[in-house]
Amino acid sequence: MCGIVGYVGESQAAPILLEGLEKLEYRGYDSAGIAVYDGKKINMKKAMGRLKVLNELTHGGELLPGKLGIGHTRWATHGAPSDINAHPHFNKDQSIVVVHNGIIENYLKLKHRLESKGYEFVSETDTEVIAHLLDYYYDRDPLEAITKVMHRMEGSYALGIIFADHPEEMYAVRKDSPLIVGHTKDGSIIASDVPAVLKYTRDVVFIQNEEIVKLTEDKLEFYNIDEEVIEKETTHIDWDVNAAEKGGYEHFMLKEMYEQPKAILDTFSPRIKGNEVVIDELGMSDDEIRAVKKIMIVACGSAYHAGVTGKYIFEGLTRIPVEVDTASEFRYRDPIIEDGTLLIVISQSGETADSLAAIREAHAKGGKVLGIVNVVGSSIAREADNVMYTWAGPEIAVATTKAYSCQLIAEYLLAMKFAHVRGKISDAELADMIEDMKELPAQVEMLLNNKKNIQKFANRYLAAKDIFYIGRGIDYAIAMEGSLKMKEISYVHSDAYAAGELKHGTISLVEDGTLVTAILTQENLYKKMISNMEEVKTRGAFVMAVTNVDNTEVERNADYVMYIPKTNKYFTNTLAIIPLQLFGYYVAVGKGCDVDKPRNLAKSVTVE
Amino acid sequence: MCGIVGYVGESQAAPILLEGLEKLEYRGYDSAGIAVYDGKKINMKKAMGRLKVLNELTHGGELLPGKLGIGHTRWATHGAPSDINAHPHFNKDQSIVVVHNGIIENYLKLKHRLESKGYEFVSETDTEVIAHLLDYYYDRDPLEAITKVMHRMEGSYALGIIFADHPEEMYAVRKDSPLIVGHTKDGSIIASDVPAVLKYTRDVVFIQNEEIVKLTEDKLEFYNIDEEVIEKETTHIDWDVNAAEKGGYEHFMLKEMYEQPKAILDTFSPRIKGNEVVIDELGMSDDEIRAVKKIMIVACGSAYHAGVTGKYIFEGLTRIPVEVDTASEFRYRDPIIEDGTLLIVISQSGETADSLAAIREAHAKGGKVLGIVNVVGSSIAREADNVMYTWAGPEIAVATTKAYSCQLIAEYLLAMKFAHVRGKISDAELADMIEDMKELPAQVEMLLNNKKNIQKFANRYLAAKDIFYIGRGIDYAIAMEGSLKMKEISYVHSDAYAAGELKHGTISLVEDGTLVTAILTQENLYKKMISNMEEVKTRGAFVMAVTNVDNTEVERNADYVMYIPKTNKYFTNTLAIIPLQLFGYYVAVGKGCDVDKPRNLAKSVTVE
Repeated sequence: MCGIVGYVGESQAAPILLEGLEKLEYRGYDSAGIAVYDGKKINMKKAMGRLKVLNELTHGGELLPGKLGIGHTRWATHGAPSDINAHPHFNKDQSIVVVHNGIIENYLKLKHRLESKGYEFVSETDTEVIAHLLDYYYDRDPLEAITKVMHRMEGSYALGIIFADHPEEMYAVRKDSPLIVGHTKDGSIIASDVPAVLKYTRDVVFIQNEEIVKLTEDKLEFYNIDEEVIEKETTHIDWDVNAAEKGGYEHFMLKEMYEQPKAILDTFSPRIKGNEVVIDELGMSDDEIRAVKKIMIVACGSAYHAGVTGKYIFEGLTRIPVEVDTASEFRYRDPIIEDGTLLIVISQSGETADSLAAIREAHAKGGKVLGIVNVVGSSIAREADNVMYTWAGPEIAVATTKAYSCQLIAEYLLAMKFAHVRGKISDAELADMIEDMKELPAQVEMLLNNKKNIQKFANRYLAAKDIFYIGRGIDYAIAMEGSLKMKEISYVHSDAYAAGELKHGTISLVEDGTLVTAILTQENLYKKMISNMEEVKTRGAFVMAVTNVDNTEVERNADYVMYIPKTNKYFTNTLAIIPLQLFGYYVAVGKGCDVDKPRNLAKSVTVE
Repeated sequence: MCGIVGYVGESQAAPILLEGLEKLEYRGYDSAGIAVYDGKKINMKKAMGRLKVLNELTHGGELLPGKLGIGHTRWATHGAPSDINAHPHFNKDQSIVVVHNGIIENYLKLKHRLESKGYEFVSETDTEVIAHLLDYYYDRDPLEAITKVMHRMEGSYALGIIFADHPEEMYAVRKDSPLIVGHTKDGSIIASDVPAVLKYTRDVVFIQNEEIVKLTEDKLEFYNIDEEVIEKETTHIDWDVNAAEKGGYEHFMLKEMYEQPKAILDTFSPRIKGNEVVIDELGMSDDEIRAVKKIMIVACGSAYHAGVTGKYIFEGLTRIPVEVDTASEFRYRDPIIEDGTLLIVISQSGETADSLAAIREAHAKGGKVLGIVNVVGSSIAREADNVMYTWAGPEIAVATTKAYSCQLIAEYLLAMKFAHVRGKISDAELADMIEDMKELPAQVEMLLNNKKNIQKFANRYLAAKDIFYIGRGIDYAIAMEGSLKMKEISYVHSDAYAAGELKHGTISLVEDGTLVTAILTQENLYKKMISNMEEVKTRGAFVMAVTNVDNTEVERNADYVMYIPKTNKYFTNTLAIIPLQLFGYYVAVGKGCDVDKPRNLAKSVTVE
């Protein structure tokens, strides 16, 4: 996720670009840049760090004259945050400049082809490929060059493009990344999202996939990929600025929950080639994968819960023994790291202090570390031996949703890869799993759209003091995460228990009306879970069940049921967490809690 | 722990013995027996199972005529529960009969010596040695024979003895096991404990170590081990029958807490020979101990918490990787059991259904299982490949205290043994640990005697809704057990967290006045724990600390401190749990909860 803006008109462009970027900083903030045509040439300024660095560097844009420009605030995906990797990106003679939000999945292939034709690359980004590709196909007709490039790119993109020899025009185009355009009082403007343009206009056009727009001071012209003119409707935006930042959602947390289908897709799609799982960044040969004797997963908070899921999945699929530990415990318990152990450290921010220390402890003992990290170029990404990124984009809400969901996907992919290489699953089984994985985004979307019912149910529990979450096996992991989502934002004291352990003590807390959330997605454990549900029900509990759509029998033992669609048995956590996220969210909203910034908590825990 | 009774006088003995045994059933109930002299010979009836089986067999005692008799209700230690192993035990010609409560530690040596002299043994008990030994030394002078036998026995005992050729007399003697005597309206009576005699008298004499009493219908004569007559004082008992069963304590739980010093001693002392740890029942040669590559500990509830402690101790001392799991999870997750894996299954009752199933799962996969079990002859004891017993005696209160403490001791002994055999600790280090272990009973006693202060503190928290327990490393394990003690009997929603994990979510539950119990017994983690205490304190928490006596610095960050004496760093859990047991107990008492039988819970969980 990144933010792009562009302006062409009568005013100085740079201050408008910087103001727009400021409103898009929630989309990325590791570096930023702008490029403005000054009447003779395109001048560019880029700076690593938050936007204010660029702001200071350009005196709020004043130092860059010109009325046509594009800007970018970055959330690193390909290439760590740096001045060079920051956008915009030029072609060789600096006559074409591009900003890009998205991922070009076939960029390596394109890059090699361009290199063979003499193009030289200065950055590590996928975006630079676009600039050179435009250069390669450009023959004084911007539209033609753009459509040719579009035909050759795979992946997602929203682009802002300037051609120095067309100084009255700006071009923009999108596929699977958001883009809007509109008019200001004296020009035209593009942006990734509404907040960036609200100061100038409330009437915007939403660009759809593979549509191109040519902007001039007073006109917007729309084209399809065949260069045919198309008509577009204007949408009036009623949101206030605050809501606009959240895409119309009440909170970043809800917005980020709704970004999960795309985040999940972004995380798995570049790693699935036909019926194979290809994880280029894994840094392990098939022989090395076969040589793994043990996996240790180390993480904190929700990432630890993803790790608990990982234990069940890795052991189930690969038959490699897995040990999971919280990083704060791992680092101080003088862990035994034997030969053949692969450490997997999971972190959204990549800055979690305990997880970072765990890596150092592992390295000191000769262990090899694979990071599963969301922030490119973060400390954990740098210190791990190899990094598999989750492509969740920036997460603003303290309570993680989409980053956690992407961590699960990363683990699925790894486990599938390992299991296949080690001969534990056949080609056909792998292909089936891939098919099931491709269904997940739509299934998550469907579950999110059930939010009204969950909100209604949540409103009955605003006064709850205690809520319990129970599950067995892989469902115990999701009980943990569901419970954390509840307690961290709603301050309801909730806890998760392995359902079979309840009767060894905790069940004494159950009294009339206590809400017990039972998760049962594993067919072989249905009966055992139903016994546990009966145990708490006979003690007066109100039982809410999260189960598979075909397990309607559960209604006999549950007071309220949330169904999830059928998927591979190892993928159920991805679906089961959705209603639990919504449930925690709506209890917190109903109680009037500060959902995005719960008391006492920080987004990224950089202290021990 | 067993219960003994005896009667000599004008009434029929058997009904009095059975009534007395009924009041002692809390001391053991796996089998029972009585022996009565009928004027010609000693008749004996024994039956496996609860006392009512014996009651029915003898028509409430009616079928056994005679006015001199002894009885026993058993809690198996040596030899599984069976008719043959039940007490009383005869000498060969059935002219001497004995009941015994205690353990004869050198019984094997004595047995071999007796066998070499032609004595034949019918039972597997240590007690039968006493009958034959009395026979061997008996020369028409009971007192002389008894003192000779006392000189030869090591261990603990309370004995009731009848000699057929002294049909007006009964003898009793004790060392380290309880024994009282008194008068009924028409005779004399002995018993292990007050409840058995309350129907007949409230004036009793407490027999002290190595004192002997000769009872006749109307007289009690006391002797020391030198056969000199001594004077004894009579004590008047004010307790009602209900309190008397609990040894004067308000609840079995409190009584059992106070039995911990002895239970701990009983568990380690037979296994320490000089500066060596000798675990006869381990069933593993030194080479087999050296061949262990991994340990998996499987248990439920408090025994699982003992397992979590075990992980830290085994890994720390032996450097063997340890995996701990709850039995209900282990059995259904298709666990990976590799060659060289030793499974340790921990259970008080030995009947825990999930743990039993875990053994079967392990056996099906070729694993070898060592049980740590409190009830001799229980299902887990029978199905495990080898059993190491905890000598805690029967536990009545649902919330375990002494059995848990003995599970820790068993783990210490095992880990010390393994570490020494594998060359990870030197002779000197082992000797030091043994010295520290020998201090534990007195240290636990001292901590128990601080109960008044803890009660006072507990009374401030009777209205608490939530209590958190935090610790790092081995102290996290004790936080879990402390939290369970609180919630299972007081119904206060308490939970334990690895202190470093708090900030990843749960800390949002902390508000003004929330009680956070911090355990910090590990010197290398003091500073980290103090940071975590500060984190919750600045959010308004009231912090109670449990720490080592030399860590007074903690008072700067804690509002209330409970100190524990200095011990080996691996043994601190044994001390730290004591104030936490008392704390949970007194909160429950203050709230008026049914401490011994908390709602929804059963003592032994024989269902999944």
